Amino acid sequence: MNTPAPAWLPDLRRRFEAEGLPADHLRDDDATRRAHAGDKWHAVALPEAVLLAESSAEVSCALHFANERGIAVTPRGAGVGYVGGCVPVRGGLVISVAPMRRIIAIRPEDGLAIVEAGVLTAELQDACAKLGWFYPPDPASRKESSIGGNIATNAGGPRCLKYGVTRAYVLGLEVVLPDGRICNCGGLTHKNKQGFDLVSLFCGSEGMLGIVTQATLRIIPAPPARAALSASFPHFAQAAEAVQNVLQAGHLPSAMEITDAYTLSAARAYLGPSALPADANGHIIIEIDGQADAVATELDAIADVLTRTGSGAILRATSPEDVEAIWQLRREFSYSLKATGLTKLNEDIVIPRSRLVDLVTFCESMQRETGINIACFGHAGDGNIHTNIMVPKDDQGRDLRPPADRLVERLFAWVLAAGGRITGEHGIGLAKAPWFPAAVGDVALDLHRSLKAALDPKGILNPGKMGL
Amino acid sequence: MNTPAPAWLPDLRRRFEAEGLPADHLRDDDATRRAHAGDKWHAVALPEAVLLAESSAEVSCALHFANERGIAVTPRGAGVGYVGGCVPVRGGLVISVAPMRRIIAIRPEDGLAIVEAGVLTAELQDACAKLGWFYPPDPASRKESSIGGNIATNAGGPRCLKYGVTRAYVLGLEVVLPDGRICNCGGLTHKNKQGFDLVSLFCGSEGMLGIVTQATLRIIPAPPARAALSASFPHFAQAAEAVQNVLQAGHLPSAMEITDAYTLSAARAYLGPSALPADANGHIIIEIDGQADAVATELDAIADVLTRTGSGAILRATSPEDVEAIWQLRREFSYSLKATGLTKLNEDIVIPRSRLVDLVTFCESMQRETGINIACFGHAGDGNIHTNIMVPKDDQGRDLRPPADRLVERLFAWVLAAGGRITGEHGIGLAKAPWFPAAVGDVALDLHRSLKAALDPKGILNPGKMGL
Repeated sequence: MNTPAPAWLPDLRRRFEAEGLPADHLRDDDATRRAHAGDKWHAVALPEAVLLAESSAEVSCALHFANERGIAVTPRGAGVGYVGGCVPVRGGLVISVAPMRRIIAIRPEDGLAIVEAGVLTAELQDACAKLGWFYPPDPASRKESSIGGNIATNAGGPRCLKYGVTRAYVLGLEVVLPDGRICNCGGLTHKNKQGFDLVSLFCGSEGMLGIVTQATLRIIPAPPARAALSASFPHFAQAAEAVQNVLQAGHLPSAMEITDAYTLSAARAYLGPSALPADANGHIIIEIDGQADAVATELDAIADVLTRTGSGAILRATSPEDVEAIWQLRREFSYSLKATGLTKLNEDIVIPRSRLVDLVTFCESMQRETGINIACFGHAGDGNIHTNIMVPKDDQGRDLRPPADRLVERLFAWVLAAGGRITGEHGIGLAKAPWFPAAVGDVALDLHRSLKAALDPKGILNPGKMGL
Repeated sequence: MNTPAPAWLPDLRRRFEAEGLPADHLRDDDATRRAHAGDKWHAVALPEAVLLAESSAEVSCALHFANERGIAVTPRGAGVGYVGGCVPVRGGLVISVAPMRRIIAIRPEDGLAIVEAGVLTAELQDACAKLGWFYPPDPASRKESSIGGNIATNAGGPRCLKYGVTRAYVLGLEVVLPDGRICNCGGLTHKNKQGFDLVSLFCGSEGMLGIVTQATLRIIPAPPARAALSASFPHFAQAAEAVQNVLQAGHLPSAMEITDAYTLSAARAYLGPSALPADANGHIIIEIDGQADAVATELDAIADVLTRTGSGAILRATSPEDVEAIWQLRREFSYSLKATGLTKLNEDIVIPRSRLVDLVTFCESMQRETGINIACFGHAGDGNIHTNIMVPKDDQGRDLRPPADRLVERLFAWVLAAGGRITGEHGIGLAKAPWFPAAVGDVALDLHRSLKAALDPKGILNPGKMGL
């Protein structure tokens, strides 16, 4: 199925050669094109060619050329996003920064690390940990997602409750603009009030305003100790109340994860009945970190709050192994949903924290009405609940998407009416583009169009995403 | 000195009346105009009229009108900025949001507060504290600066080391765009990945892209305990080393403030010789917060680090009164510089943390060379050092600005070469506009122009700031 090379590719290769850049990083073989056609969402589209970039000079040369010729360019990090953000819907050129894997410097004395965009999040975290330092953003995908992708989606994770999202850790960026110019914004300092906040403009821009090639990231001293609690409740509402009570008692855990009854019953089926109390219809995991003495005392205080809120079964973890075992339980919840054999539509909606019970009640009522199961679990502290609609199957075992899609539609309408947002972590991309105008409103949508036109007047960069 | 009302003012009043808005909020009396001519920087310029806005509808109507007519509009919060950011250099209309003083809601259950832009920072903090909650951003001006102004400048303060700057606490904004449209961006949720980060685009935009009228702010549980240390060192380099050693030992204090030898000698002259050890040439204040037991233990551990780094005189504070006394000492350092009778040019430069000693060495060498004193003190943890050039006087007691201005020039050149930034908190405004192009570079400067043109094509909003 080899297709002819695009007419422009020989010209781009010559441009690379003229500038002393490695033209063999430009590929148009089918295997490379197929490997760069999509992410973890279902949509795929073949690019005409792929640049496996190893330097910002290559990215710059390619964008300069593409901008002249009006060729669509789709940037790509590790390609593990959930919303089709790196699907090259208009063909053209994919620019992958995945090969840019150097950790350039880790400088505790300045509280920063400098990395290329393709460095995996876990690689950076591990390198910092060896020095006793800590890069907090921890998307679930941290072992396979790249810093560049984290920045493009402003990635979150469980620990955002205490530590904030990726943007809070980006001090400086090297970004290649759609016309090929290289823009350095932010810098090496922890504060910076020089002009507009260009760094934040690129953070979360889903590769539509520029391609991040290098980042300077804030790191902090690693908290010496970490501990966790796992607690079951007879009612989900008690688990949600426990979240409020812990915060109201003056604790700011690094993470507070909640799980609903449907997920817990799937977990019992998957892990065996002894894994969880039979009457557990709500469950929370709380992680705290800090100085060792403090963590021990605070763990007791939080356990008291949970007991008073109705938890009969509390598991405490103070060693790194035991804490990891609790997080493993959290992962098992996810696996047990997969083990149902059903496809799950994972919607990362976010609501005001006080609406947790309302969300689950709404999902349970849709479940009763339609017979389609919905599993809610996630980051309770910041209201970012992964709401998984379990796609039913027809008699032949094929996914019945239309009724599930209608539930997504109803879920998003409810979330927006409740003051929530349709995505807390994954982004808009292709997957949520149909809902984007309603989600942000006319004026903000128009502002998106103005910004896109100002930075990318020819509209070559990641076209079609967010419906722009 | 009453001047004739601008020709457009009667039309704007009629527009207000037609829309049912209070036309008497539009003022052109001299007293009001003079009261809205400047901030804490030296430049002033009289506006032709002032809108004392009490609602976003008034701001919207006035901007819509001004945009049609091409009338310059200068937004204003509490008017206590340091860089002339609200000086109406082209006359026209000043829109003050200072009258918008309502705290609309504080909702611990959602971890947020909703306030109008004119609310003073300390008012919000006090209201949160009564509920056991905490709004961390704490610019020194917190008792007189407004949330709107804090957002326009992305205000910092001592506690940014642990808690981050204002932007980290802004969840949502109501912003009136230069053409009068009202844009709601962000929202009520702690995470939000819906599209570009419009909230951050407006945070720190110095009133040049829109006028913030309402903000939804993140609040966190108040740490139950707070403690502080004050420590003197024979050498400034030891104080700087102590900052590194405390962080390297795994502590993340809420604040770490450093003071140089010149400031300490001014403090001894002002407060009396018993206030500080005679051999103190460097001084740090460290504040920690958290759970009570933890704070007590951590205070001891940090004191040990300071002793090992050479401090012979450590003062510990664990009660709220004693902690406040240590912060009062910090304020006295500032007063003692004022008590020298010299005008100080307070430059809020920021450098990578490891360059603290280099900065002070550089300032001392300029001091020896020119005889002009320079006082360095400030937020050591994030490298944001207030570098005060003490303006000498001539025989008649008049300020001799040119030699001091030349030192500012040299300071900024050194800071940029050291990987620093010329402003960490105050912003660019008018005061630092001459250095803005060199500070951000050609590409970023051009990006500022593109963004400004995209959002404010007629250039009516806060013209002349940042040199744009």
